[in-house]
Amino acid sequence: MKTAKKRLSEKKITLVDVANASGVSAITVSRVINQPEKVSESLRIQVQKAIDSLGYIPNQHASSLASSKSRVIGVAIPSLSNIVFTEVLRGIYEVMGANGYKVLLVDTHYSPLEEEKMIRTLLSQSPEGLIITGGDQTKACQNFLTKARIPIVQIMELLADPIDMNVGFAHGRAGYDVVKHLIGQGYERIGFIGARMDPRVQQRMQGYKLALEQMGKFDKNLIVTTPEPSSIGVGGELFKSLMASTNGVVDAVFCVNDDLALGALFEAQRMNINVPQDLAICGFNDIEAAAYVNPSLTSVSVGRYEMGVKAADMIIRVLNEKPIESRKVDMGYEIKKRVSTSRL
Amino acid sequence: MKTAKKRLSEKKITLVDVANASGVSAITVSRVINQPEKVSESLRIQVQKAIDSLGYIPNQHASSLASSKSRVIGVAIPSLSNIVFTEVLRGIYEVMGANGYKVLLVDTHYSPLEEEKMIRTLLSQSPEGLIITGGDQTKACQNFLTKARIPIVQIMELLADPIDMNVGFAHGRAGYDVVKHLIGQGYERIGFIGARMDPRVQQRMQGYKLALEQMGKFDKNLIVTTPEPSSIGVGGELFKSLMASTNGVVDAVFCVNDDLALGALFEAQRMNINVPQDLAICGFNDIEAAAYVNPSLTSVSVGRYEMGVKAADMIIRVLNEKPIESRKVDMGYEIKKRVSTSRL
Repeated sequence: MKTAKKRLSEKKITLVDVANASGVSAITVSRVINQPEKVSESLRIQVQKAIDSLGYIPNQHASSLASSKSRVIGVAIPSLSNIVFTEVLRGIYEVMGANGYKVLLVDTHYSPLEEEKMIRTLLSQSPEGLIITGGDQTKACQNFLTKARIPIVQIMELLADPIDMNVGFAHGRAGYDVVKHLIGQGYERIGFIGARMDPRVQQRMQGYKLALEQMGKFDKNLIVTTPEPSSIGVGGELFKSLMASTNGVVDAVFCVNDDLALGALFEAQRMNINVPQDLAICGFNDIEAAAYVNPSLTSVSVGRYEMGVKAADMIIRVLNEKPIESRKVDMGYEIKKRVSTSRL
Repeated sequence: MKTAKKRLSEKKITLVDVANASGVSAITVSRVINQPEKVSESLRIQVQKAIDSLGYIPNQHASSLASSKSRVIGVAIPSLSNIVFTEVLRGIYEVMGANGYKVLLVDTHYSPLEEEKMIRTLLSQSPEGLIITGGDQTKACQNFLTKARIPIVQIMELLADPIDMNVGFAHGRAGYDVVKHLIGQGYERIGFIGARMDPRVQQRMQGYKLALEQMGKFDKNLIVTTPEPSSIGVGGELFKSLMASTNGVVDAVFCVNDDLALGALFEAQRMNINVPQDLAICGFNDIEAAAYVNPSLTSVSVGRYEMGVKAADMIIRVLNEKPIESRKVDMGYEIKKRVSTSRL
């Protein structure tokens, strides 16, 4: 292998090298690359051969400046390690790739200040569109986003006043429906386990609270949360602490995501608590393990991949001046009722 | 909310607008942005106020061309949905972000042809460095990578002949060691479950095969694989088919990743097979669930986040002309021995 130093010091392959190697002018090479329809096929093949053998790659920055089209889309998500976002990203990358767009992805670490900095960085690359998460932006960030002359989609949650376009689902309503399902199965003392406590988790908790208040069954002592990131380990710890602080009177637990719910389930098994007879456990996100674990885990299913596809598709449509059905799209959700919450 | 059409048709904020709003010349504004050390603090504050209130973002493409520094690093991974890569990415993004670099990330879908196309796209953005996965590139791709005048790190596996730099671990040796561990625990008929069958999975299988051949215990009928992507569901299906085709004579299963292993474990539980007394199950990657599931799952632990950090750090060092310890770094691995494989 060559040392990087050696490789770095080598002369960069230019358009002129390709012209020399293929025996045509630089202008002809440029035409083959940028307006292939204007040259003959034999000329295209002749020049392409030189391009391939030299390993020449045209510089996109020059053409970006010339056309003011960067072919780049910026995406800001709060966490790279959260599987929920990787599925959304898969949808975004598929649509963007198919339409010839590159994606600049930034991780905002659930911090609006970090997000402001990161979106500023994205905008300095002249993206043709932006996909960002939620509606928790700083004032300054909202200000420059409002002034950015590009389509923007806020994803993951439904917003009262989006900057431009919005695709998400109603987290509060989902939390409310989970509690209704648990009550319907005969569970009465319903606890809540939450971590990270970002805006969407807060909305799920508000839905949980509202449903129990309506029934006169709300008890704030049954809520345990932590600002730490979610994990299976944290779920187990929060479950132990909920059991200890309530002397085990809870007969159901709504966990704000499936990692926490799996942690609670595995811990309940180690404590010899019978799920679902003595205790119901419900998660959120419907990750694959939910359907396969024993007992299978009730969870809230959301079309994350579809949300990414939808957001990307809206941007592509606006860029191509095609109509979009609506500027605000509710992706909905479904409670997947499984063994972990079925006492009846 | 404004319509995108309206926002798109609005005039873009330019340097001249900032100059007019702050009452200084365009050259002064440019200096405040690009050489702030050359202007007074009061002037900086005056211009920054106008920048903030107008929501002006300097265009990075113009300065990229001027300085020939794009401040972009390209990264190519085979799958966005595989949690293994998201942890590596977290390491890459942290180091690159801290050093002021943006990341262009592409998903090659485990296809060398797709990879060639994607890396060509990345190179057209003039990245200052590249991080790519494995050593399975097409000839054409190897050709233009060898000629690219930038540092390149191939990650995830150890390569005999890397293009430039390499960070990974020995998948074959890890597979070999897993079998040795199972034999040491008294298991004798060791099956293999694999999906996707990418180059790294193949290496794990070769290690498994070698260890059993050396003991005269290799039986190709105990191998079940599928070209499908891995999942918990696929793990369960492959386990059922292994049990059916061998009339249940296997007493241990090495699954090439933890999703497959969890699927096998959950399915074994449904079949009332006692793990680990009647059957050992070993996974790979040591995802968080491995330590928490009941029984806890033996798996091969690899520093994925650390691998991302290392690869990014090597690129930053080369770009800053700092020495690197070695052009080829073995990150190693550790077999986490848990209940699912402990009969003794």
